[in-house]
Amino acid sequence: MAPGFASASCRVRSVLDRIGDKWAIYVVDRLGGGPRRFSELLRGIDGITARMLTVTLRGLERDGILTRTVHAAVPPRVDYALTPLGETLLSAIGQLVCWADTHLPEIEAAQAAYDGRSDESACPEQAAG
Amino acid sequence: MAPGFASASCRVRSVLDRIGDKWAIYVVDRLGGGPRRFSELLRGIDGITARMLTVTLRGLERDGILTRTVHAAVPPRVDYALTPLGETLLSAIGQLVCWADTHLPEIEAAQAAYDGRSDESACPEQAAG
Repeated sequence: MAPGFASASCRVRSVLDRIGDKWAIYVVDRLGGGPRRFSELLRGIDGITARMLTVTLRGLERDGILTRTVHAAVPPRVDYALTPLGETLLSAIGQLVCWADTHLPEIEAAQAAYDGRSDESACPEQAAG
Repeated sequence: MAPGFASASCRVRSVLDRIGDKWAIYVVDRLGGGPRRFSELLRGIDGITARMLTVTLRGLERDGILTRTVHAAVPPRVDYALTPLGETLLSAIGQLVCWADTHLPEIEAAQAAYDGRSDESACPEQAAG
């Protein structure tokens, strides 16, 4: 079993701080389909800003998870692609995706129950009816 | 194979937005060791603020991943614990922890190489030496 990582070594934590980020997860997932340009990633990931995408790509490149390749063209074309190390991360991330997908009905039922309780405490006179 | 989730359904995305968050990951990991009080979680997770912990716990409770139990005591004692659903998430999260732990040497080598390149481009006269 993996050691608890809230108390993991500082070095492992610094990696997890970056990997445990929804934008990093989405970028890695997206590149699982093959190399992509910046503009393709920006369009393909709902809600990400150009600034956050830039920061995320730079962090993942520094970690050796993706490569950034500048092609000599006019205008220059830049491709991002997973490295072999990034491919291994993709499979770990896939577990989380599968989990969310598999357990969605349970999660939505829990949310409805929670929101029902919150309504009661907000409006006790209705709950008493 | 899991479907790409940058383009996943809105409902799965909303779950992943919350799960793919380092604080949520750290809280679930921490509760893998058994029920914890708020103050124990606050102390046990480096860098988290009381406000972020509150928000994170509330989101995970709403998703049915953890329970919040208030014990009649003076002062009242509040315990947080994983639900059976939360236990299944713990195992998916464990894959990410294992990944970071296993690949740390490769990641640190990549970082050193990246930083070396950045130094060169920042100080070309040194790189030419």
